[in-house]
Amino acid sequence: MIKAAIFGASGYTGLELLRILANHPDAKVVEATSRQYKGTPVPEVFPALRGFYDGLLFSDPEDLGSVKADVAFSAMPHGASQDVVPELLKKNRVIDLSADFRLHDRETYNAWYGEHKAAHLLSEAVYGLPELYRKDIKGARLVANPGCYPTSAILALAPLAKKGLIKAGSVIIDSKSGVSGAGRGASLATSFVEASSGFKAYKVGSHRHTPEIEQELAVAAGGQLNVRFTPHLIPVSRGILTTAYAELNTALSNQEMRDIYIDAYSKERFVRLLPDGSFPDISQVRGSNFCDIGLFIEGSRVTIVSAIDNLVKGASGKAVQNMNIMFGLDEKAALFTPPLSI
Amino acid sequence: MIKAAIFGASGYTGLELLRILANHPDAKVVEATSRQYKGTPVPEVFPALRGFYDGLLFSDPEDLGSVKADVAFSAMPHGASQDVVPELLKKNRVIDLSADFRLHDRETYNAWYGEHKAAHLLSEAVYGLPELYRKDIKGARLVANPGCYPTSAILALAPLAKKGLIKAGSVIIDSKSGVSGAGRGASLATSFVEASSGFKAYKVGSHRHTPEIEQELAVAAGGQLNVRFTPHLIPVSRGILTTAYAELNTALSNQEMRDIYIDAYSKERFVRLLPDGSFPDISQVRGSNFCDIGLFIEGSRVTIVSAIDNLVKGASGKAVQNMNIMFGLDEKAALFTPPLSI
Amino acid sequence: MIKAAIFGASGYTGLELLRILANHPDAKVVEATSRQYKGTPVPEVFPALRGFYDGLLFSDPEDLGSVKADVAFSAMPHGASQDVVPELLKKNRVIDLSADFRLHDRETYNAWYGEHKAAHLLSEAVYGLPELYRKDIKGARLVANPGCYPTSAILALAPLAKKGLIKAGSVIIDSKSGVSGAGRGASLATSFVEASSGFKAYKVGSHRHTPEIEQELAVAAGGQLNVRFTPHLIPVSRGILTTAYAELNTALSNQEMRDIYIDAYSKERFVRLLPDGSFPDISQVRGSNFCDIGLFIEGSRVTIVSAIDNLVKGASGKAVQNMNIMFGLDEKAALFTPPLSI
Amino acid sequence: MIKAAIFGASGYTGLELLRILANHPDAKVVEATSRQYKGTPVPEVFPALRGFYDGLLFSDPEDLGSVKADVAFSAMPHGASQDVVPELLKKNRVIDLSADFRLHDRETYNAWYGEHKAAHLLSEAVYGLPELYRKDIKGARLVANPGCYPTSAILALAPLAKKGLIKAGSVIIDSKSGVSGAGRGASLATSFVEASSGFKAYKVGSHRHTPEIEQELAVAAGGQLNVRFTPHLIPVSRGILTTAYAELNTALSNQEMRDIYIDAYSKERFVRLLPDGSFPDISQVRGSNFCDIGLFIEGSRVTIVSAIDNLVKGASGKAVQNMNIMFGLDEKAALFTPPLSI
Repeated sequence: MIKAAIFGASGYTGLELLRILANHPDAKVVEATSRQYKGTPVPEVFPALRGFYDGLLFSDPEDLGSVKADVAFSAMPHGASQDVVPELLKKNRVIDLSADFRLHDRETYNAWYGEHKAAHLLSEAVYGLPELYRKDIKGARLVANPGCYPTSAILALAPLAKKGLIKAGSVIIDSKSGVSGAGRGASLATSFVEASSGFKAYKVGSHRHTPEIEQELAVAAGGQLNVRFTPHLIPVSRGILTTAYAELNTALSNQEMRDIYIDAYSKERFVRLLPDGSFPDISQVRGSNFCDIGLFIEGSRVTIVSAIDNLVKGASGKAVQNMNIMFGLDEKAALFTPPLSI
Repeated sequence: MIKAAIFGASGYTGLELLRILANHPDAKVVEATSRQYKGTPVPEVFPALRGFYDGLLFSDPEDLGSVKADVAFSAMPHGASQDVVPELLKKNRVIDLSADFRLHDRETYNAWYGEHKAAHLLSEAVYGLPELYRKDIKGARLVANPGCYPTSAILALAPLAKKGLIKAGSVIIDSKSGVSGAGRGASLATSFVEASSGFKAYKVGSHRHTPEIEQELAVAAGGQLNVRFTPHLIPVSRGILTTAYAELNTALSNQEMRDIYIDAYSKERFVRLLPDGSFPDISQVRGSNFCDIGLFIEGSRVTIVSAIDNLVKGASGKAVQNMNIMFGLDEKAALFTPPLSI
Repeated sequence: MIKAAIFGASGYTGLELLRILANHPDAKVVEATSRQYKGTPVPEVFPALRGFYDGLLFSDPEDLGSVKADVAFSAMPHGASQDVVPELLKKNRVIDLSADFRLHDRETYNAWYGEHKAAHLLSEAVYGLPELYRKDIKGARLVANPGCYPTSAILALAPLAKKGLIKAGSVIIDSKSGVSGAGRGASLATSFVEASSGFKAYKVGSHRHTPEIEQELAVAAGGQLNVRFTPHLIPVSRGILTTAYAELNTALSNQEMRDIYIDAYSKERFVRLLPDGSFPDISQVRGSNFCDIGLFIEGSRVTIVSAIDNLVKGASGKAVQNMNIMFGLDEKAALFTPPLSI
Repeated sequence: MIKAAIFGASGYTGLELLRILANHPDAKVVEATSRQYKGTPVPEVFPALRGFYDGLLFSDPEDLGSVKADVAFSAMPHGASQDVVPELLKKNRVIDLSADFRLHDRETYNAWYGEHKAAHLLSEAVYGLPELYRKDIKGARLVANPGCYPTSAILALAPLAKKGLIKAGSVIIDSKSGVSGAGRGASLATSFVEASSGFKAYKVGSHRHTPEIEQELAVAAGGQLNVRFTPHLIPVSRGILTTAYAELNTALSNQEMRDIYIDAYSKERFVRLLPDGSFPDISQVRGSNFCDIGLFIEGSRVTIVSAIDNLVKGASGKAVQNMNIMFGLDEKAALFTPPLSI
């Protein structure tokens, strides 16, 4: 039985880790920290979990020394996570859900997030997207769990990028996310009244997930591949839909394009390539670890639509998938359940 | 042209006053205060109002002396409103949207809200429900604008209470409100993610609107009429639906009951009695000043369902209706527009 | 491995049975019928299930003869279910999710639903509420799965009724349901545009679940216990919140009341009695088989609030719970998972 | 007082015409037809309108001869509208809200919609986008009211197209619409349960609004300007947000781009250009006739975001604006009211 500790467990990714791990056959949460709620029973903060973690109290994150776990999930905000990860690594293998260890290039990190305080770990951290880095994840000491938008964008475009088919400068990523992506803190912009009848673009041309997407597309393509990325806010709790546009270096038939994706994903249990003419809906992946993908091509122009649950495949589900890989467990354990589509 | 000042204009009732008064043929907002946003143009805080108040800046509420208005709306929270109303009354007639002057009895106020700092005004304030107190409102210097829940409950039950038909101890008021009732402050409980898939009862047996409802039903009935009141939170922005249950002292036919309501409301332009067998839906009054009422009786047991927009008939629309009455304007001015039902 | 067949599997209760049974360790769906979709792969109709039932086609319900299952779930509408249940019973134990076999009294059924075509089975059918009839369910050939509203109302009131504490004529059940309760058929009233900003009461004083609630409260109380029942429509997909009001024959202390519920439910894994002063929220039971209950008492007047997911504890989850009981499986199998609260 | 008749008045665009015209100072609805509801009072079908059209019954659309109006709005579906418009034109000036007369080219119409039955009117019909064709609208006998998506896309891109700045082949229009765009008919896909937690792309590469957008961009640019257009469905009732991407023939500074839009729209009362760095939100135009526009440029790559209420500026509000222009009324009449942003 793998023992897991969750640092910063009182946010939404923490809640999701607790929810998913509650039914894991081979892993068990032994510690969950929260500065705000230390000493409080978990189900008092998350009433949905009543009956599952009745004996578990949120502990003080300062008590790092007391953690005796096999794996530590850091669900702290970026900036804060780099403060604790080096310490955690002394005892545990670590899966970090923040943005702190996703970018390999220190300058890029500093430019988008500010000075990194544990930059020596950037080169060691493995980018935790199982579909691209499964082998590296298996042996990793530190896994940087990918961002929610990047997960949906990279899974949509990587197969074409890997074949060297994407024309530089042609990629547009128009993404739409549910409100839980903003986290559990209260703010006017994500209040029910402000958000429930709205839909808007935000951080146009300046969202921090841009360099992360570009880093991974560059790896796949074997060369720089800049993107224009526009995130939007959908009035739902969960889900990201990404509509990715690109121009290819050559025209492909519909079947040729499809074959590339079949090739890339037919063995993946959490990527579902939809039938010809079908496109994903975030409701059909809700609460699940699936990424659904639909394809469209006209000549050399492609439109690829992907859907994930931002809290599951976009965060905590993928983190558990990484844990399963790291510890040689069934990769599907605790994760292969049908979405709650309605 | 009536000049109106709005104190505490950056909350939702302030926004609604601005929205409604933007189209008033005989009134005009000359001042809107906000401690938080002083110096900021109104449309920067409320982008929906772009094009309407482009020259108006939020002003500092401390500058009470500068207000040269005919009427001052206080849209400040209870407790804070009693601090400014006495000052405002020196220059303006005042319509107070807080709870501060609704209860006539000082002890009751103190018991539910804490020590009142301007209790000498409690006896002067007129309870601003036009359907019950139109004449008093006309001459009032200080109108206490009724609470949202009480408006829906009192309009539902007053006709029967006035006839002395309601059996003491039998009244149950099961009310459901949209989230905007909680105001514009950010809080976890009213965040989109927490509220959008939820529905719950809150403050069971202890909501502060209880004494306000009881006060007015007692006036109508000519004697104490206690109620059991349970508020609930609906995942919509606007709307209150109240399902009121009572037992009558005598059995009535359906038509006898209906006649009582026709009698009470046939001349009211903002109360719409629905046809037999029809019951209201909050969507059908959204954005409007209407109160829709549906009736059901079986022997001596009645179920009355009422619906209002909590921000309009439940707050700012009713406040403008009161202003119209106070200044001899057309009572319907700026208010008689169809609901935005979809 | 228990083999399960689902009749009328293309509605929402069918979808939920498929979803829940996908992860059952000891049961497996071997047949799913749908007149409308016969011959179509299940995941084509329900894309969320892609990857789970890829080989299963909806079959023709006419081919009753071909079913070789241990248990048949009938998820057909009332009226239609009674046509197939007698036939199904020749080969399988049956759990009927319709209203057809819930009422023991034929006259009552006929009065509310029309002439029953298989009334000889009414006396045999066991009312499938595990918390009240676990032993009978264990041996039953035909289980009538309770209605969604009745489940929430009966679990809220049965403990007091059993103690003979409820005053006749005092019970008011104010229930609120998500839209999925209306089923999967398209209708204007349940369209997104009509329902999403609305909240209304419907079938005031005339909903068919009334006699079902009264039947079971009468059994519990050992005597007739009429109720006033008002259903409302919440703009969410899932969830029922019931606010039940009653007057007791005697005043109880808060703790005395609480002890009655502890007594009734402390051994139940799917009923969660909330701490003093806490009340349930439908979001905290969403997607789960839990019924959360909160209590309030003042003298002899009680307010009990219960919350369930109408499709799970209110329908398909409870049906699987019944199956687990009938076949001697772990009662929690496939059901003891945390709610998807956000 | 202009007399208006509405053909096909029982859909959502009909409801919106009724809602908007209820407060028009110089126009009045004298007839509203509906095959389905003929003989029924309007407020019985649309309870929100109770108190406004109490004497008006839906009439039979067959009784074309009885219409004595100045203007006829056809709110019938495309295909059906072309059956009645020629007849209506004999007596009235006509504003057609369907797609039937928007495309000037008969072959294009036939290719996308099927054989046109009144193609002789295609050349006469004026494309009713006031910001582009105000003068033509003024004298028009037949106005083809633009589609909802095209309105948002054309207003976003026309200023750049007119300057000849847009590079051919570079335009991507990623649009997102509320559910009311699908009309008032009940369907599974637009039911509350299916749509409320979803977000999806649909008709990828094949939506019928594509040729309409291309027609108008070609007029503006003075040459063919193909677009890639992807519509998506937002779980809100009202609103379209369009995120338009294009590459310019030359790099512009932020201010140069802004000046082009100021030039184009500074005199328009219903187009609101947002401040630098601000982007629109559909909630801020809800229920109003405004189109809000935000701009972003990086080198020669632009992202323009526009927001409208699909039922108002996207349909019925714009139709009333057209009526106001055609009859020499104040263009803002009945339309210049603040959005219902919350």
